Amino acid sequence: MKRTSRDIRRGNRNEVLRHVIASSPVSRQELAAVTGLSLATVANLVGELLDRGVLVEVGYEDSEGGRPRGLIAMRAGGGALIGVDVGELRVDVELFDLELRTLDRAVEPLTSDDLQPEQVVRRIVSGVRTVLERARIAPSLVLGVGVSMLGLVEREGSLSVYAPNWNWHDVRLRELLAARLEFPIYLDSQLMASTVAELWFGAARGCQDVVVVTLGKGVGAGIAIGGTLYRGATNTAGEWGHSLLELDGRACKCGAMGCVETYVGAPGIIKTLRDIDPDSPMLLEDCFDTIDALARALSKGDPVAVETVRRTARYLGVAVGSLINLLNPQVIVLSNWVATRLADALLSGMREAIAEHALPRPLESTRIMLCPIPNNPVSLGAATFALEGALAWVRP
Amino acid sequence: MKRTSRDIRRGNRNEVLRHVIASSPVSRQELAAVTGLSLATVANLVGELLDRGVLVEVGYEDSEGGRPRGLIAMRAGGGALIGVDVGELRVDVELFDLELRTLDRAVEPLTSDDLQPEQVVRRIVSGVRTVLERARIAPSLVLGVGVSMLGLVEREGSLSVYAPNWNWHDVRLRELLAARLEFPIYLDSQLMASTVAELWFGAARGCQDVVVVTLGKGVGAGIAIGGTLYRGATNTAGEWGHSLLELDGRACKCGAMGCVETYVGAPGIIKTLRDIDPDSPMLLEDCFDTIDALARALSKGDPVAVETVRRTARYLGVAVGSLINLLNPQVIVLSNWVATRLADALLSGMREAIAEHALPRPLESTRIMLCPIPNNPVSLGAATFALEGALAWVRP
Repeated sequence: MKRTSRDIRRGNRNEVLRHVIASSPVSRQELAAVTGLSLATVANLVGELLDRGVLVEVGYEDSEGGRPRGLIAMRAGGGALIGVDVGELRVDVELFDLELRTLDRAVEPLTSDDLQPEQVVRRIVSGVRTVLERARIAPSLVLGVGVSMLGLVEREGSLSVYAPNWNWHDVRLRELLAARLEFPIYLDSQLMASTVAELWFGAARGCQDVVVVTLGKGVGAGIAIGGTLYRGATNTAGEWGHSLLELDGRACKCGAMGCVETYVGAPGIIKTLRDIDPDSPMLLEDCFDTIDALARALSKGDPVAVETVRRTARYLGVAVGSLINLLNPQVIVLSNWVATRLADALLSGMREAIAEHALPRPLESTRIMLCPIPNNPVSLGAATFALEGALAWVRP
Repeated sequence: MKRTSRDIRRGNRNEVLRHVIASSPVSRQELAAVTGLSLATVANLVGELLDRGVLVEVGYEDSEGGRPRGLIAMRAGGGALIGVDVGELRVDVELFDLELRTLDRAVEPLTSDDLQPEQVVRRIVSGVRTVLERARIAPSLVLGVGVSMLGLVEREGSLSVYAPNWNWHDVRLRELLAARLEFPIYLDSQLMASTVAELWFGAARGCQDVVVVTLGKGVGAGIAIGGTLYRGATNTAGEWGHSLLELDGRACKCGAMGCVETYVGAPGIIKTLRDIDPDSPMLLEDCFDTIDALARALSKGDPVAVETVRRTARYLGVAVGSLINLLNPQVIVLSNWVATRLADALLSGMREAIAEHALPRPLESTRIMLCPIPNNPVSLGAATFALEGALAWVRP
């Protein structure tokens, strides 16, 4: 994607907003200091955001003898945002104020006979109506609905969803939703939503070059360059789950062999567990339950669980080491439910393998950490797309 | 790296220059059409470059009844640029005019007792003096000397070279050169030089998201995002040679196992040849000679050579497939001497493996091709850094 001075202005405005959200109330001087922008640029951007009702003046602070400095904050009630996470098992709909604090949340289950586009649209619409009614938010306050989809959300001319697990090909989900919802719709992939959440609210705030490794049933690596999402030619960048880990290794559902996903995605971890103990009582019918059982056994020091996580951490560490060599990022964040469940055991286990594979020089300049966002980063990231979208209009 | 509106202006100016170099003489209207910039922006940038003596007005063209359009061209004699490629075996020094046409070239051999920083500096200085004298170019015309180094050229505060093969650690090569040469010095890595050459003069001209795979003794993947080099946190992005190809595979000199370089770098290809036929007459003492012998035998249909290249192409294809999935680029260019020697056999051999490993959607949007630059792309890229550097000063 080509960048213009308008992109730069948007990027600067988003960076100012991120800091206001993180540390309201705050002065223009402090914003200039933390963002590295000039005071004039900050004052100009803050002026625009005050005019548009996103920010509000909230008083003054002493500045040690100088003129008192005006303080600004997000105008929390100035609008509402909705973030939707369409996942494997359910649709998670969250309503946020402009500080991205959760006002309400609705969960709509998905069952395997329920996965046609029209049915998923019905679930999303139902969740949106529920949260607005329960929180008594007038629809006119809603600035937009961000929707995160699993699978690929491709941009070739128009936007379409490709989700092979659900047999979705070129589904125009945005149009389907726009026909049922009166709000602006911002559709993107789960990987992009997870990555933007880290940039705005998580481990990557203020960072330039970032990789967000998401570990679920599928596996991805969201990339940010210069503090901005990297999308690639058709918005499918980050399909790291289908990078090679082992030549002619495990068969992947994509048709190739040895993909990273077949080792460190949930089904891959379960394969490792089965290799170690084919009769393990941790092996349950559902993959979410199995990973939960593994996490519980791990906390009790069960040797099969320990060995399963040790091998998984080694696979993951070697693959992450390759990413460090290729992309030389400032920070790598581990996100999504498998990372949350196995957390510190995975993180500490992978450090040795990373050191084994990454070149010492880029490794020195990379921090590796777990996603610090306490709630669902995907619906939060989706709502962030709605905030970015609502602000995308730039004053002439 | 963080981008500012000044970076955007530089990027636009570089894009205008690339098109002028490619298709002089050219009108402002045509430049606006090919770059997608407004006519006002193009006129402004062209005005700056005319003032600075880089461009020159060369007449008018008819515009089918409208006002005649002014034509501009590079002012070829308005300055000179020097590009230096410090390689494994020699220092290649090229003198260019402002259209980046070669005026003269000097080759200084490097021998294994000759690899201390002071000795390499002496070779570079000698080559620079030689080309200037022979071409009778006044030193005052030289806008800068770009120097490409093998190994890592790191930016952490200041710039230093790390070349483990030569036992160079934190060598301040730019300072050493600046003490001996009166010109501005622009130091960068071979990978960055190869990539910028493709952006300006090669297969990536006009492209946004690009990967340049360099195949030599070492292996790398230079990355451009939004038409600009991606450097990473400390300028070491692109160390793709040390991505994983096979878990616990061949031992790499970096200390890890199974790195891409150990399969598709020249010594890796020779290892494959030796695995197939330990007594092959193609196995010569020097790795350059061996790859040459392999290329000759390949052109005669020698079955050992065919099998060696078939396996190499498969390794390369699977690894490039991983890159396509991760980065979703518009174009992948194969560069450097191993790619040049094995050329079409490698390219056609790898297509099957790429299709085997890359996801169909990103693969559809990626072109894969050989470097089309007829001369040494590394010294050309180094000279391009000098041109970019000389223009980095922006009018207030």
